[in-house]
Amino acid sequence: MDEAEVIGRLQRIATHPAARGLKDDAAVLDGLVLTHDSIAENVHFLSTDPPASVGWKLVAVNLSDLAAKGAEAAGALLSMALGGDTAWDAEFLTGVEHACESYRLPLIGGDTIALPPRSPRVFGLTAIGRAAERVPDRAGGRAGDRLWLIGTIGDAAAGLKQLRADPRASGVLVEIYRRPVPLLADGRALAPLAHAMMDVSDGLLLDARRMAVASGCAIEIDLDHVPLSGAFVAEFGGDRAARLFAATGGDDYALLAALPPELDAATLCLPSATRIAAIGTLRDGRPQLRLTSNGAPLDLPESLGFEHSRNHDRNDSGAPVADRA
Amino acid sequence: MDEAEVIGRLQRIATHPAARGLKDDAAVLDGLVLTHDSIAENVHFLSTDPPASVGWKLVAVNLSDLAAKGAEAAGALLSMALGGDTAWDAEFLTGVEHACESYRLPLIGGDTIALPPRSPRVFGLTAIGRAAERVPDRAGGRAGDRLWLIGTIGDAAAGLKQLRADPRASGVLVEIYRRPVPLLADGRALAPLAHAMMDVSDGLLLDARRMAVASGCAIEIDLDHVPLSGAFVAEFGGDRAARLFAATGGDDYALLAALPPELDAATLCLPSATRIAAIGTLRDGRPQLRLTSNGAPLDLPESLGFEHSRNHDRNDSGAPVADRA
Repeated sequence: MDEAEVIGRLQRIATHPAARGLKDDAAVLDGLVLTHDSIAENVHFLSTDPPASVGWKLVAVNLSDLAAKGAEAAGALLSMALGGDTAWDAEFLTGVEHACESYRLPLIGGDTIALPPRSPRVFGLTAIGRAAERVPDRAGGRAGDRLWLIGTIGDAAAGLKQLRADPRASGVLVEIYRRPVPLLADGRALAPLAHAMMDVSDGLLLDARRMAVASGCAIEIDLDHVPLSGAFVAEFGGDRAARLFAATGGDDYALLAALPPELDAATLCLPSATRIAAIGTLRDGRPQLRLTSNGAPLDLPESLGFEHSRNHDRNDSGAPVADRA
Repeated sequence: MDEAEVIGRLQRIATHPAARGLKDDAAVLDGLVLTHDSIAENVHFLSTDPPASVGWKLVAVNLSDLAAKGAEAAGALLSMALGGDTAWDAEFLTGVEHACESYRLPLIGGDTIALPPRSPRVFGLTAIGRAAERVPDRAGGRAGDRLWLIGTIGDAAAGLKQLRADPRASGVLVEIYRRPVPLLADGRALAPLAHAMMDVSDGLLLDARRMAVASGCAIEIDLDHVPLSGAFVAEFGGDRAARLFAATGGDDYALLAALPPELDAATLCLPSATRIAAIGTLRDGRPQLRLTSNGAPLDLPESLGFEHSRNHDRNDSGAPVADRA
């Protein structure tokens, strides 16, 4: 049973409507939106990452799932493996607390556990949000919708690449890799309007394909319209290779939304700092992803992002990868 | 910062009323009862335990927390580290599914993650329950209440002892260690009546002292009245040493309830198979635990159960212990 089979089996078990077929970012139960993501040392973060940034990231990646559902943060359960390095643990908690305070997420429970000696650190968080009137899922996209990206992509993957080359690397891209910002206000503003919405965590192309499959539409993305940050372009340029790297990198925590075509950025009432770009269109046809550049079709790259199967083998390299479906 | 300090710090962070000061088995938010417990290989279960029993136990220990709050199971988020041993993972899921079906707990979400090679397995579950009209906590016990134990204690610790002596050991006690039964129906019946209630997970004496401290009462337990199972007595006898072993062993998932003195077992309308025993009294005085036997005071044993500090050192033996506050 590989991981696809595990997920298939879980989906067959999870028949309750609250589960949304396990195909969404979160469950919805009694007006609450519930999500759980775990992070492990040397898989989702680096041993050399500052512990406060690890605590921040744990909270932020879970809040990003709430953002994608337009939910308001209501509470969190923290599952903390104590590592024996008490200074590390204290700094980690500082990061958790900082993120919780920044996004008004009350810590309301959880557990602490011991792990055997020399285990990698593992942390989990259950984030609970209050649902707005509408909780968009991945499946509601319709032919004719425009596909919008809220935020930028590629920065985190670029920061990770810099850290792999030099563990002492620093700068904006490294900071974005370590301290993602969940787009909660944007998610709340878009939730009543979006036919489909999800966060981009495993790579834009991979997550867009997931939305296409769930919605039963083709999704066409214009690579030239994919927004890159100034820091990214300064470091990696903006040519096709750089754009494909950004669009498949993962760990972005941007939002991807399918909106009716009559809406445009000016009418969306998003927070003033929000960067939003129309990057594609939903079309009738086989549920798949298509890519264009300069108006011409482009072959899809071999890897669209970090698929689960790529990092669920105990015998793999254990290299840090994104894995935040 | 040792674990007591970590918990102290978490309690200072968790000021939201839903957190109940992190002193309870679960959080209560918008009518839902929420709890998260993780289990790790060679800490909370043995590498040699059948994988289906590990899946069962993960679900059962979390449901036990819902039982202590009188909540009805409503949903669960499973956090599953894939181990690369696909047969093991499949059997583990069978155990999860079996427990979920047995207690009508819908699986509604969660995540799967990779761990680096040779990591111990770690699993987490967030259990969500619907609160009844009243959600008893640990703090409501009053002087004059009788202290009741629902279920028996010592069986799991006895089973673990047998497995440590012989990994191929089998029998009722081993089964109870591996497959605890959450007392959901009992918890629901007692919740409207109990002044205080909690599950016994780290050892009867330790957990009773926690109730005493939370309630601001002295609790006096008569060791002779502590109920032992037939299987336990057949293997370990019922003398004082055996009773102290049982009362400090942990991993029991029995319920401990402080009830008004006018209530007795006959009036409680519990499920017919329920074993319930009045084991002590809440009294005015310094919040502490007192023990008696044959009507005479008894010194408390050095260890009252599995305290967190005992198994949160990366340099410890990594021996399996209970740790389910």
